[in-house]
Amino acid sequence: MELAAEWVVGFVDGEGCFHVSINRHPEMTVGYQVLPELVIVQHERDVQVLHGLKRFFGFGVVRPNHGDRYCLRIRKLDGLRQACDFFVKHPLKTKKRIDFQKFHRIIQLMGQDRHLQREGLLEIIDLALSMNTTVRPALEQVRSELIASG
Amino acid sequence: MELAAEWVVGFVDGEGCFHVSINRHPEMTVGYQVLPELVIVQHERDVQVLHGLKRFFGFGVVRPNHGDRYCLRIRKLDGLRQACDFFVKHPLKTKKRIDFQKFHRIIQLMGQDRHLQREGLLEIIDLALSMNTTVRPALEQVRSELIASG
Repeated sequence: MELAAEWVVGFVDGEGCFHVSINRHPEMTVGYQVLPELVIVQHERDVQVLHGLKRFFGFGVVRPNHGDRYCLRIRKLDGLRQACDFFVKHPLKTKKRIDFQKFHRIIQLMGQDRHLQREGLLEIIDLALSMNTTVRPALEQVRSELIASG
Repeated sequence: MELAAEWVVGFVDGEGCFHVSINRHPEMTVGYQVLPELVIVQHERDVQVLHGLKRFFGFGVVRPNHGDRYCLRIRKLDGLRQACDFFVKHPLKTKKRIDFQKFHRIIQLMGQDRHLQREGLLEIIDLALSMNTTVRPALEQVRSELIASG
């Protein structure tokens, strides 16, 4: 499946999600691990589109998701950097663009190893908390713990 | 907001819905009215994208939908004909393409006034019932009534 750049932008405007989670990870310097990802979920009938997107970005893993759904996840930092370069060159048209800009900033901070220090990690958490529209109690909890430990 | 053709295809692949409903309408020859529409629903924050799509297609009405959502609906037959021409020239990449092909066939049948006769209307209902994935008891009901009246 050959995908045009603008088609990819339109499809990600509709179906893509830039998401950042933070997990406890005792082996990391600050005790937490930052996990940014670009996720696209589709019904299994359109798994070929996910494989087409994987080829387009040159990164990502296609796996079963909940129920009859599959997802493409790009998690490798190299892949996310390339995806960010793409969406800088081909801007999203919906307000998802604002989430993307925060996501891009997080990827840049991680490139400078800022997520390995308390202050940088707090900056990343604040960006992540301002993304998407869902409430994220787990992320709020990590934030409180970090502030309490400062 | 300037939208590229391929962006529109990608966005409709993600967010668009080709939908056909049939309403009882005593003034119509066969007692039913066929209502095809192309619908795109977005959160109110992206109402500008809906207006951009309306300008792109040159047809449609943007209105509040449920809750904090807005929708663009193209219902005029002229507008739907033009939208069909567009998606024939710029094919959808997801399986929504199959729904579109059935929708296109319905628009063609309506152009030949086939929806004004019982046989044509039954053909349209069978196409509509095979579209989308939701169960449609109201449409099944109209179908039963038409068959019983034949």
